[in-house]
Amino acid sequence: MNFLEERIQKDGIVKPGNVLKVDSFLNHQMDVFLFKKMAQEYKRRFAGKDINKILTIEASGIGIASVAALEFGVPVVFAKKTQSINLDGEMYIAEVESFTHKNVNKVIVSKKFLDPNDRLLIIDDFLANGCALQGLLKIAEEAGASVEGIGIAIEKGFQAGGQLIREKGIQLESLAIVDSMDPETGKIVFREQ
Amino acid sequence: MNFLEERIQKDGIVKPGNVLKVDSFLNHQMDVFLFKKMAQEYKRRFAGKDINKILTIEASGIGIASVAALEFGVPVVFAKKTQSINLDGEMYIAEVESFTHKNVNKVIVSKKFLDPNDRLLIIDDFLANGCALQGLLKIAEEAGASVEGIGIAIEKGFQAGGQLIREKGIQLESLAIVDSMDPETGKIVFREQ
Repeated sequence: MNFLEERIQKDGIVKPGNVLKVDSFLNHQMDVFLFKKMAQEYKRRFAGKDINKILTIEASGIGIASVAALEFGVPVVFAKKTQSINLDGEMYIAEVESFTHKNVNKVIVSKKFLDPNDRLLIIDDFLANGCALQGLLKIAEEAGASVEGIGIAIEKGFQAGGQLIREKGIQLESLAIVDSMDPETGKIVFREQ
Repeated sequence: MNFLEERIQKDGIVKPGNVLKVDSFLNHQMDVFLFKKMAQEYKRRFAGKDINKILTIEASGIGIASVAALEFGVPVVFAKKTQSINLDGEMYIAEVESFTHKNVNKVIVSKKFLDPNDRLLIIDDFLANGCALQGLLKIAEEAGASVEGIGIAIEKGFQAGGQLIREKGIQLESLAIVDSMDPETGKIVFREQ
């Protein structure tokens, strides 16, 4: 097991309905020193890629993306889910379905911050059905930006998102892939990588 | 002018209705190396305080808080604005009004992550009417946690939030306080600190 799998095993809580709670270190309380180790691991896995920007989506992707951006020496753009008076000018907008919240969300990025010169690393905390990711990919494509890779903390390997991304030929690196989990015993089975 | 005031003068855009757009470096695209300088400045200003946790609120506070947490060597807890299936167990909930989005939001933190042993630094990107901050303070008080200080990037000095906080006797450090701004000329007047 790598450092993230060990942490998930130790502090993650398996709930019925394939819910894995990692809110004590990943997406409510955040262990930024764990994020730093994750960032260093992304740096190693994407060593050959000439990345100039990190793209993520609010809210729980922002912490990991910010710490990774320090490691990569690049800025972050985070996609928004709602339009506000702070968002004006032309925007890229994609519609995506959220597994977590069971509704349809928008993914919105100002056109000012993505263009054909951008070579993106997309970062997010979870990959399940991959709907949020598909939204980010659609926006990157519309902007003419290249997606050099995708770095995920935890992939639910029993859901379709990861396979769909890999079939596109994009380098997808999930630091932990959960193949199965049992809410009765709390046992989590990680995919060998 | 300090480094943040200079950046706001250079890249901030003044819009009618007292809107200051800093989305190219602070709250949509994020310059994490600017955040690192801000974090070092917070560290200097709160040098005497024994802080063990940073508290912020989604979404645009998370990036600054995460980089600051690396500097302070502590974890971050970010308050959520909506309840989801990822939030269960007992929660602290405060209701706040948002100036930006012109609606009422909730501020929600799981009871697991705040307790009387916590000595908090609250971090956020903007302080205007201070409604979000009041929600965070209410939650901290309910948890019995102490608020050692509040670190803000940009305070709108012509709105009431800052004064209300200072009257409570809390150490509030805003790296830039805007006293006035003119959408016609783009001129921004910062308070001498």
